[in-house]
Parts: sequence; structure tokens; C-alpha cells
Amino acid sequence: MTVPDDAGPIVVQKYGGTSVATAERIRAIAERVARARDDSPRLVVVLSAMGKTTDGLVALAHEVSDDPRGREMDLLLATGEQVSVSLLGLALQHKGIPVISLTASQCGIRTDDAFNIARIESIDTRRILAELDRKRVVIITGFQGMTRDHEVTTLGRGGSDITGAAVAAALGASVCEICTDVDGVLSADPRKVPHAMQWREISYEEAIEMASSGAKVLHPRAAEVCMAYRIPIHVRSSFHDGEGTWIRRGDEMVMEQAAVVGVSSDRKIAKVTLIDVPDRPGLAAEVFRDLAARAISVRLVIQGASAAGLGRITFVLDDEYVEGATRLVDDWKSRGLATAGIVDREVAKISIVGSRLASTPGLAARMFAVLAREGINIDCISSSEMKIACVIADAHVDEAVRAVHDEFFPEGTAPQAERATR
Amino acid sequence: MTVPDDAGPIVVQKYGGTSVATAERIRAIAERVARARDDSPRLVVVLSAMGKTTDGLVALAHEVSDDPRGREMDLLLATGEQVSVSLLGLALQHKGIPVISLTASQCGIRTDDAFNIARIESIDTRRILAELDRKRVVIITGFQGMTRDHEVTTLGRGGSDITGAAVAAALGASVCEICTDVDGVLSADPRKVPHAMQWREISYEEAIEMASSGAKVLHPRAAEVCMAYRIPIHVRSSFHDGEGTWIRRGDEMVMEQAAVVGVSSDRKIAKVTLIDVPDRPGLAAEVFRDLAARAISVRLVIQGASAAGLGRITFVLDDEYVEGATRLVDDWKSRGLATAGIVDREVAKISIVGSRLASTPGLAARMFAVLAREGINIDCISSSEMKIACVIADAHVDEAVRAVHDEFFPEGTAPQAERATR
Repeated sequence: MTVPDDAGPIVVQKYGGTSVATAERIRAIAERVARARDDSPRLVVVLSAMGKTTDGLVALAHEVSDDPRGREMDLLLATGEQVSVSLLGLALQHKGIPVISLTASQCGIRTDDAFNIARIESIDTRRILAELDRKRVVIITGFQGMTRDHEVTTLGRGGSDITGAAVAAALGASVCEICTDVDGVLSADPRKVPHAMQWREISYEEAIEMASSGAKVLHPRAAEVCMAYRIPIHVRSSFHDGEGTWIRRGDEMVMEQAAVVGVSSDRKIAKVTLIDVPDRPGLAAEVFRDLAARAISVRLVIQGASAAGLGRITFVLDDEYVEGATRLVDDWKSRGLATAGIVDREVAKISIVGSRLASTPGLAARMFAVLAREGINIDCISSSEMKIACVIADAHVDEAVRAVHDEFFPEGTAPQAERATR
Repeated sequence: MTVPDDAGPIVVQKYGGTSVATAERIRAIAERVARARDDSPRLVVVLSAMGKTTDGLVALAHEVSDDPRGREMDLLLATGEQVSVSLLGLALQHKGIPVISLTASQCGIRTDDAFNIARIESIDTRRILAELDRKRVVIITGFQGMTRDHEVTTLGRGGSDITGAAVAAALGASVCEICTDVDGVLSADPRKVPHAMQWREISYEEAIEMASSGAKVLHPRAAEVCMAYRIPIHVRSSFHDGEGTWIRRGDEMVMEQAAVVGVSSDRKIAKVTLIDVPDRPGLAAEVFRDLAARAISVRLVIQGASAAGLGRITFVLDDEYVEGATRLVDDWKSRGLATAGIVDREVAKISIVGSRLASTPGLAARMFAVLAREGINIDCISSSEMKIACVIADAHVDEAVRAVHDEFFPEGTAPQAERATR
């Protein structure tokens, strides 16, 4: 289906759970949507579940089953967004705004059948476009989809961002607005660094690295989708109409590329160290094949130099995988792959993110020097072109973030600083 | 699709909201379903929403809109049963029972598009039968359906009973079990009449009249559907495995037809009296056309004899329609249909229900005599072959129920009394 040129651009807005946490906030979002519709008559709104609804449903599921997952879990969790889209629909109808609320299944968001962690395969936009042509605001449940067999699926935590991005991509929207409880993308978490700066714009790649390194602004897959389809993202507040942060292609950005755009941290990690690993070809591959077979994703790997034919393998993983990894460690010991395995949950990761970090001399060194000056031990390091991450003791992570942020963004730097001025 | 003869009979169980009100109760229902499956391997379970979930959703809707209804309201309310079927599915999976939870849309319960009060048009049983053939317990959301265009609808209050009956009818089930928080169909509400008797069996017609006259045992439309398809209903407790009350065709019943099977009452009514109504042809029709146009259903009508060309029209309606009726009264006054209209909410209805009531001499007279002896004024009376209903002051309704019940079922009558012995 082709969109007639004169139909005007389509705007997609995604609102997160805190933005629709209560009936009062839903009424406020209805006001905001009504205003947005004056500027952008072709408006699609994607919603998360209200506040802590999803957590509540997960808790209920754990009351009836030790290991709730699969198809029935998705059927359960999908109700959260169905409630929020219905309520926003009723609130807009009450204001006399023509509107229709659609479930993912009703608006043709097709996914694979990997329940709980499904991926969007396609979106049949016919219904959405038909409703927009009828001058209705279209409200869509985030976080969920349906399989070819009409089974309900969910996309995993933060999945509403992915829905917003995928809908924007499928519709060729002029912008995907991520409306949230912060004002935009900041150089650090403002609860930890009060003078954190808000960016006017950053690149998709920077946003993806920021999101992957613990910043909660948006889901990295959402930024990837928008990057692939060249849909600009606007991360902005749900609570006022001020400009937030634009995320777009680096080569389209008017300002010079930054070196460092953000300092982020993540406490929800653990470190596993295998001791006395024989220096035998294929052994590391065996370890990581076992991890992959249990769907344990590893964030960082360090293989130490071997002494006397015995080495160490260290890897960092998300908290949620610790139990599975611990069982594997016992298995490896019994198979002679290591004499011992140490699982350390008292660690955290601090990252700096930016463009061309690795190829800009001295940036990594400045980060390490600051941590050394603060007396914070660096446990292990990983670096990529866009990110330098250090694993440290989690007791020190907040002071580490403040110190590293101060190094790259000295206090007094203006908010919305021009990138070129740094 | 035909069911192979050797596949065995299908049992449909419906559980109400109080039976699945908490995670603990859902676990208990899972135990019960697992036991039922041992006896009846082809088992379909229809669920209501947990406890007061629907009330909570309605309250939320009223926080965002003054008049929440229509399509988005149904999308909202339908989440309640989706939660309960998912949780029971997870609880049964946890016990190792093969199971699948289906929404009304997934199992093909097609309704008309009268949102909020939809009627089931057809059920495509292919998915249900395929799942039963795979040895799975099939759990279905009650109370809801979908239109031809895949819009979500709901059937109105008590609609889960209707779903249970319609599913049982479509599958040609051997029984439709209504599992609830009472032990069966009683001769009166046991909270009002402690020595109320439980029936071993009653006819469909009696059940329909009991349900319509305020007894909360099951939805009258559910009994109508089962009557049309000759599916026996078994009203029984969710909390123990004891026998409840069977509802079947009168001519199949082994015991003699009762005269009176129950005494019920309903406080949620109001009485509207139009004063000085001109005795003009077509005027009553005009009044009732106006009521029908506003979807106000009237339960009882009394048109008084006219004196000097002016008469009275009295009608009794459900509480929820009072506001609409009050607006109509003003309209009628302005159009000269009446000089005044009195809306009285302090009324209640007491009914006796049974077979051949009107044609059994003296039963109505005994009811009126008891009320007179208790000094309770009868405001108006309606009678049909199966029911005699009196409108009285609501302050007296509980004592009226006790007195009338004592007349027909003197204290000391054994529970589960043989009908023939009365």
C-alpha cells in the first residue's frame, strides 16, 4: 500500500509506563496527544503498560508456578498494554477526539514464535493507514505481537520502544518520539551526576552504545531499527513540550562529532573467573559453546595469558544468568576444564560512550587515570570503537561515574552544550 | 467437524470470579481441574475474571471518562479473563498437566458487534477439538467474544455463564458445570434464610425464572442456551466435589414437578409512576417506545384503570436505568403525557418461582396472605405461569423472604428434599 503524498507525514509517539502510571497521568497524556494532533494530524501512539503493572503480573505468575514462561506467560503479560491503550482511547473519546485503540494482533504486528523474547518480522500497515485516513488517532499496544498462528507474543523488557520504532519504520514516519520521564539523553544519570548535560543530538550508534551500557533512555534494538530505516528519533519528556534529544545519522548531524557523549554504569552484572584452565586448543570455544547452548549471553570476555600451561578465563554476564552459569562451572570442573570457578556478584561496569573513542588517542588513558586517582581498582577492561568499559567493585561505581563525568564534562559546562565547543 | 464416537464425552466447567479471586484459589482450582481430568479426559474450562477485577477496570475507566463504553471499553474489560486463563494455564503447566489457554478470539467465539452487550452468533470449535485431541485441557476466557472484523466484544455482566453454556452447546458436551461459591440451587438465599433447601434437580424453565428474579446462581441466558441444545447443567461448589443441583428438561426429571422451587428477592430495582396520564390510544405505546429507544428495559408494567379519563402507568426497572428514566419523565411532562412522575428507589421485589404456579390454585393467594399477616403492603403484582412477583418497600424485603419461604418450606424440611415428598 502506498501512502498518498498529500496525506502528510506520520508521527509516532511512544509513551513509557511511568507516563501512563495512573488514570490522572493518562488524562494528561490525552491532553498532550490532543495538542500533538493539531500539529500532526496523522498521529500513531504506542503505549507501555501502566507503571508497575507488568511487575505485578510477573509476581502473580510466580505465585502459581515456579517457572512461569512460554505461551501462557505472554498471554498474561500482554493484558498490561491492552489496559493502557483502552484507557487512553476512552480518555480521548471523552475529549471528542476520534481515536481507535488496537492490539498488536489487530494491527498486524507479526513476530516469530520465540515466546517472551519474540522478534518483529513484519507489520501489515493496512489497518493503521485506513484508520489514519479516517482521521483517527491510532493507539497501539507496545511490547507485543502475534505469530502467524495468532498466538500472542511479547518482545521482552523495554519492548514498547521496539514496537514504536518498528511501527515508525513500517509507516515511513517522519519521526519516532520516545516520550519518557527524563528530558532527553544526558551525559550521565542525573540522579548520580546532578550537573549531567542534555544533548541536542547524538548519532544512532552513540545511542545504541549508551543504551547497551546501562543508560535507560531507550532500547538499543529500537535505535537499530530506526537507524536501518533512517527514521529520526526524538527522546523527550512526556510531561512538557520542550525539545529533547534527537537521534539521527552522524553524517546528517550539523555539529561536529563528539568524542565522549556519556558516562553510564550497570550494577546488574556478575563476573565469573575460571582458574587453572589448561592451555588446550578449542577449550575456550567449548566454554562459550556451553554458554550459548543455555542462552547465556556474555558481555565481556578476558582470556589471561597462560603460565605453566594453565590460564584463566574471565567473563562478565548479566545478573539473571548467574544461576545458569554457576551450574555450568560445576560441570566444567567435573570435566577438568578448570580447577575452580569464582562467581563474583559485587561488581559493576562503568562505561564511556562516544564516536571514534578507540581511535582518539588518550581518551581511554584519561578514564583509567581518573579511576586510579580515586583509588578505584580496575578489574578488567573491554573497549570497542564506541565504548570503553571497566569492571570495578560495585561499592565504588557511583563515585566512579561522578569522577569520570567530571573529567570529560567539567562542572559548569552549559546544558545543551554545542558539541563543537568541547 | 464431527467428533469421533470413541473420543469420549466432553465436560465443560465454568468457574466464577470468586473461585479464581487469588493466586491461592487458582492453585486450588488447578488441583480440582487435574482431578476432573482423571474422570473426564476431554475437559474444557471457562473462566471469569479474578474477583473484583472487572469492577476495578470499570472504576479506572470512569476515572478517564464520564461515559466509558463501546469498543474501547470491551477491549479494556476483556483483559480480566485473559489474566485468569493465563494464570490457570501456568498453574496447570506447573503440575505437569498439558493445557492451553485461549482467548475468545483464538477459539473462534463469534459475536455480533453490540459492544458491551454482545450476543454469541457462532463458535468455530475446530481449534478447541484439535487441542482436546492433543490431550490438552482447554481453558477459555468467559464473558467475551470477537466480531467478524476481529474486534473484541463482551457479553455483559454474568457473561461467563453464557460462554460456558454456548461452548458446551457447540461441543455437544455431556454436561455444563457451573462451579460457584454456593453448593447448588437453593430455595432461597441462605444468608437470608438459613434453613434454605438445596435442590437435587430443577427444570431449565425454573432455573431461568429463578435467575431472572434475582437469584444469582447462573445467568438466565446460559440456562436458555443449554435448554435449546439439551445440555444438562450441574450447578455445584468450586470448593468441594459434592453433588450440586442438576438442571434438565422437566420431562426427563425423575421426580414430580414442584410447585414452588424458590423464593428470591431483588433490591436493585426502582418504580416509576406516571400520574394523570390521558386515556388516549397509543400513549402507552409512546412511553414504551421512548424507553426502548434508550435501551431501558422494563421489568414489570401496571397500567391502572383510568378515572375521569386520566390514568396511571407504573413500571419497574433496574436501578441502573433510573437516571435515563428520570430524564424521560421530564420529557414526557413537557409533552403533556403526564402531570407528574414519581421515581421510587426504596422498593424491592420478592418472587416465588416454580412450575405451573399460575395454574395451581391458591399458591398466589398463600403468598399474599403471608405478606398481609406480616403487615407488608404489596405495591404491585405481576404473575406469569412460572413466577409471581410482588413489589414491596425494600425495608421489609428480608423478613418477607423468610416469611414466604417458611410458608412453602416449613423449617425442618430436609435438605435435598425429594420433590415428591412435599
